[in-house]
Amino acid sequence: MSLLSDHCRRIAERSRSAAIDLAGVTGERKAGCLRAAAAQIRADIAEILAANRRDLDAAPGFGLSAAAIDRLSLDPKRLESIAAGVEAVALLPDPVGEVIEQTTRPNGLLVRKIRVPLGVVFFIYESRPNVTADAAAVALAAGNAIILRGGKEAAHSSGRIVESIRKAIAASGLPVDCVQLVDTADRDAVGDFLRMDDLIDIVIPRGGETLIRRVCAEARMPVLKHFTGNCHVYVDRAADLAMAGAITVNAKCQRMGVCNAAESLLVHRDVAPDFLPEIAAALSRQGVEVVGDAATRAVVPTAGVASEADYAAEFLGPKISVAVVDSLDAAIDHVNRYGSRHTDSIVTADPLAAERFAARVDTAVVMVNASTRFNDGGELGLGAEIGISTDKLHARGPCGTRELTTYKYVVLGTGQVRS
Amino acid sequence: MSLLSDHCRRIAERSRSAAIDLAGVTGERKAGCLRAAAAQIRADIAEILAANRRDLDAAPGFGLSAAAIDRLSLDPKRLESIAAGVEAVALLPDPVGEVIEQTTRPNGLLVRKIRVPLGVVFFIYESRPNVTADAAAVALAAGNAIILRGGKEAAHSSGRIVESIRKAIAASGLPVDCVQLVDTADRDAVGDFLRMDDLIDIVIPRGGETLIRRVCAEARMPVLKHFTGNCHVYVDRAADLAMAGAITVNAKCQRMGVCNAAESLLVHRDVAPDFLPEIAAALSRQGVEVVGDAATRAVVPTAGVASEADYAAEFLGPKISVAVVDSLDAAIDHVNRYGSRHTDSIVTADPLAAERFAARVDTAVVMVNASTRFNDGGELGLGAEIGISTDKLHARGPCGTRELTTYKYVVLGTGQVRS
Repeated sequence: MSLLSDHCRRIAERSRSAAIDLAGVTGERKAGCLRAAAAQIRADIAEILAANRRDLDAAPGFGLSAAAIDRLSLDPKRLESIAAGVEAVALLPDPVGEVIEQTTRPNGLLVRKIRVPLGVVFFIYESRPNVTADAAAVALAAGNAIILRGGKEAAHSSGRIVESIRKAIAASGLPVDCVQLVDTADRDAVGDFLRMDDLIDIVIPRGGETLIRRVCAEARMPVLKHFTGNCHVYVDRAADLAMAGAITVNAKCQRMGVCNAAESLLVHRDVAPDFLPEIAAALSRQGVEVVGDAATRAVVPTAGVASEADYAAEFLGPKISVAVVDSLDAAIDHVNRYGSRHTDSIVTADPLAAERFAARVDTAVVMVNASTRFNDGGELGLGAEIGISTDKLHARGPCGTRELTTYKYVVLGTGQVRS
Repeated sequence: MSLLSDHCRRIAERSRSAAIDLAGVTGERKAGCLRAAAAQIRADIAEILAANRRDLDAAPGFGLSAAAIDRLSLDPKRLESIAAGVEAVALLPDPVGEVIEQTTRPNGLLVRKIRVPLGVVFFIYESRPNVTADAAAVALAAGNAIILRGGKEAAHSSGRIVESIRKAIAASGLPVDCVQLVDTADRDAVGDFLRMDDLIDIVIPRGGETLIRRVCAEARMPVLKHFTGNCHVYVDRAADLAMAGAITVNAKCQRMGVCNAAESLLVHRDVAPDFLPEIAAALSRQGVEVVGDAATRAVVPTAGVASEADYAAEFLGPKISVAVVDSLDAAIDHVNRYGSRHTDSIVTADPLAAERFAARVDTAVVMVNASTRFNDGGELGLGAEIGISTDKLHARGPCGTRELTTYKYVVLGTGQVRS
């Protein structure tokens, strides 16, 4: 075992030990600790902004874009929003200890299914420093220890924020190693952690598809993730076309670079001649390039040709693929074939069409007459989120504190044996 | 793509298509189909027993042990028990369609979390023909399509049972391909299916550790499994020693070759001198070899020396490892270090000790004053089980119909867009 592996293993062992202690801590104490962390972040504003200055000074050397530098930048207002975010997590109900089910068996055994923390979370993310505080807060609120591995571009900012949080954890008498930040200097550390399935219960990668695919290929523990968000809006023949237009523009354009933005528009052939020219013009006004099939181009001559790859693509930018479908079922088949099981929306006034779409589209979040942009922990009422899952096992859709828990059976007997 | 791959892919595509149709079928119709399947199995008794005869005739050629041949053998009584098992699954509540949560957001969005089938289950198992009917029934009851890959030793029996079940499915008007059996002739088929993560949602291997490790290494979809069951009984200093003796003997000896049998006994040092000589004698009377640490051997001179490997081993036979521990926490540490997260039991009259053990032992099922042998879907009230999970994500412990479901969000709006 290399020195680095050895070092990483000790970090994970400290995490595991902290997780076992943290699992038994009450919700009140965890909430108190999070409030103390928010206060400490506010108290340490000068130090955190100074650390952020060091990251910003180094940013040109990393070749960061102006947008990336903006996301990296902290100021008193942004720092206050980070602290307020941590306080908001403190207000969420404690998921741990919930008795999910309880039954008494004929032999007198009392069978309890109890919600418990997952244990140790390894979180790999990119350079926004606010994510550091969010993730630490959500993990701690659910009773988990977290190992944070952020982007090197935000190393000083994240390091200083974690220092404030750990100060608060120590002052609250909780195990300080329930939040640890890994030095980003060594890229091999990630691979080391991904092999420690005896100590780490789950890895959550957040970032580009390449990072996530690498994590999935190497991780020996379960991965909570989505690769891409190829989200659809389907405009049914029974759609209110004004509503369909507003939803399509919002889903595509409100924020183009995010996973719950729409990438593909399906339109029932009965409404295509009415709907498509108007929506294509509206999208063009927002700078969105429209590519479509022959039926689309027949009514929108300005549209480009959509390739097979376009229907499978997550553009994350000003481009949308359009197809005219012959029926509701053809729309469902298209989504199930090309979609990424993330978020798909139907616009229709026909409740049976909505029901069939919702039942048969194999996706984490089905929207009926609403924008795909609502697939978000805050918007769906989870309070906070650490990621979005497109997997079907464990957790699906936005993942908050409860999705960072599991359950165990605790069976209370009075000496029962099996005959 | 080889001809075999192509053939397997078509099987999986038929499964996927059947799964989409089956997802919308009511609980009443699924239960009716299962009752029809039970009736068909009873009606086809002559054909099924004849098929079983062919397997039994071939058994010596496979080098099956007498015990294995016994497990393979069907007779009218065993076949009736298979039919009754399918009927019992029909009585379970339908998990599909349950509204797990429902909230209305301030903007009027109605957010529903709805229980839905997983989709397509690939089930790999060994040679007992009753498992064929059980697994098909549990999968169908939860609205899933299942691809069955049984052992070659039971190929004729399983094939004929599946024929009866498919006859009943067709007669009930459900998609017949929701139950398919894969020909066992080609071993490569398993590898083909394990790569089809676009069509298969979960693989459940049941059998020896080698099989399960192979499946985990090759599968691109999630695996529901346990590798081993290294289950512990911890006798606390506050234990009722008569109860502790009865539980230990039952946990170890009631059936030695199963995953929820005890493999290791931990005894608090305060009660070791009283408890160990008696339990060692009782275990010896059952033919169980006792190996222990120095403290054990000090009071049980007949005990062998336990190696480090013994504490990690799942013996599945007449051998048990014993250790004397200095404290409750030492017992917890031992279980978390050597255990397999399957089932661990504490015997104690001290509720605080029980609570600490239950909270800190990282295992699927904690037994308090009860035998480890109760970790079983039937015993814990799930009604039926398709396997036991020692993973922490998705499902933990025995897995029945509900554990073969996931959820999706269905969000009902009236044109909401995000601002």
